[in-house]
Order: sequence, then C-alpha cells, then structure tokens
Amino acid sequence: MTEASKKHDGIREGEIQGMMPDQFDASVYFIGRIHTPFQTRAECPRRGDPEQGPVCTIELDARFVDALRGVDAYEHIAVLYWMDQARRDLLVQNPKHDGGLAGTFALRSPVRPNPIALSIVRLIRIGGATLTVRGLDCVDGTPLIDIKPEFTGGRKPCHA
Amino acid sequence: MTEASKKHDGIREGEIQGMMPDQFDASVYFIGRIHTPFQTRAECPRRGDPEQGPVCTIELDARFVDALRGVDAYEHIAVLYWMDQARRDLLVQNPKHDGGLAGTFALRSPVRPNPIALSIVRLIRIGGATLTVRGLDCVDGTPLIDIKPEFTGGRKPCHA
Repeated sequence: MTEASKKHDGIREGEIQGMMPDQFDASVYFIGRIHTPFQTRAECPRRGDPEQGPVCTIELDARFVDALRGVDAYEHIAVLYWMDQARRDLLVQNPKHDGGLAGTFALRSPVRPNPIALSIVRLIRIGGATLTVRGLDCVDGTPLIDIKPEFTGGRKPCHA
Repeated sequence: MTEASKKHDGIREGEIQGMMPDQFDASVYFIGRIHTPFQTRAECPRRGDPEQGPVCTIELDARFVDALRGVDAYEHIAVLYWMDQARRDLLVQNPKHDGGLAGTFALRSPVRPNPIALSIVRLIRIGGATLTVRGLDCVDGTPLIDIKPEFTGGRKPCHA
C-alpha cells in the first residue's frame, strides 16, 4: 500500500490505497432497484432522514415478492444496497476534502472493500413488489441486496 | 416457485422455495474472520447481546488494518458478515418449526438471497487487526465483509 502524498488516480491528500485480494470469495444477486430523487452522487444527502426525507421506492424483483410476507408489520426496515459506482481500494479517506482523515471502517463512505450500504428507513406502505419508504440517501437506480426487519444486534429499536 | 406441501429437500411445512436468478451480479471479498464460542449453528443464540453476550473477536485481514483508524471512537459498531452455511432460495420460512410462516425479508434468518448478516456490537477494544466485541451470534469462523460506525439511517444512536 502506498501513502498518497499528492493527488493521483483520484486520491486526495493523505489518503491510503490498499492492495485488494487477488480474487473474490462470494457473490451477490441484485434483487431489485431503489428509486430516489437523486440523479448523481453529488445530489445525495450525507445521510437519509427516515422522518423528513423524500419519499423513495424500492422495486423488488417480482420473483422475490413472496418474501415480503409480514414485512408490513414493521415501522422501520433495514435496507442493504450495493454502491456500484464506488472504488473499493481506499483504506484511509479524506471525506470532506479538508485534510481530516479517517479509516474506511470509521466512515459510511461508499468507498470500501465491499460497497454495501445500510440505511434504516421508515416503511410507508407495500404494494405488490414496491415498497414506499423515507430515509434513503443513494443515487436513483442503486441495486438492492437485502431487506431486514429493524431489530439489529439484540438492541431494542430506538422507536420502541 | 413451488409451494412445499410436504417436507422435501430440507423444506418444512408451508415454506416456499423461489427460483434464483441465472447469474450473480457482483462479488464480495471476505476481509477477515469472526471468532465466537459457537461451533455449530444450533449453539448460536437467536440474536447477539451487545451488553451481556460472550466476548468475541473479529480478526481483520492484515491488509485492511489502516482502515480501522478512528473506529475506536465508537462504542458500538455495525458488523456485516457472510452466512456461508445457508441456502439462499427460500422466500417463506417456518423459522420455529411450528407452522408460523414468515417472509424471508421479515426475518433475520441466514437463509436469504444474499446471506449477509448484520449485528450491532459493543466494541471493547482494538489491538492491531483484532477487534474485541460483545453481541455476535454467528458460528465461529464466519467470514467478515464490513465494519461500519454505528449511526444508521439518520437515526441518532440509541446510546447517545
């Protein structure tokens, strides 16, 4: 890995690029697409707002619609999606372009070895294979990879 | 897809098996391994407990250690891991073997199209590439795929 002392290959001051493994270990299916009002990464908020954010839709691939049974019981759901526009090889990043450096695992940046994003969103309704939600922060068309009921890690949901 | 009216191919009463897509869309790196006291899936708790659960360790691949910079500022972190022992094709499941059916996306079951698990854990310490935590619920040796600071979806952390 090389400390980038000057900008090259899109790397900013102080950022560190890692050597990725030679091969992948497992594979994912894109199980749907997320639709938001954000057409470019520059338009995306730093973090979605499940209460005040714009209404977005999740279009699940029709083959998976039976897997939604019971999801409507949840006020909040966890949405996992694949940030397919991001590079994967930065270990230390300069997210605000201001010299403040942080490790990739201390950031929600799309730049990470596995570009999986997680948002907790408010579920407004489900109709067929379409979920209407608030709280997403990604570019329109982003691939969906999972939906989970929101009770993570044994911790009680904040909204309880 | 076929409604399973009797047990076959490991499918229980009422479970529904889906047709998976013909090909995968993206790939993941295993970036480390999780060590827990649970040697089999039967020993795993239904959900980890970040306060009272056993101490577990996350052994990050040494090539990613620089990406931990700043993670120690967080009391809780989100850990994503790959449940590599699970089948992926059930849409409706009978998780308690009692006839109570639920869609895969209403469950934390390891059986899902992309077998990615999420736990919020308490971070006890970081030493080199080893994170010591409480709150994991997976089998010893489970592959790690991501670590994120715990502030999901615009919601304030519960511990704040």
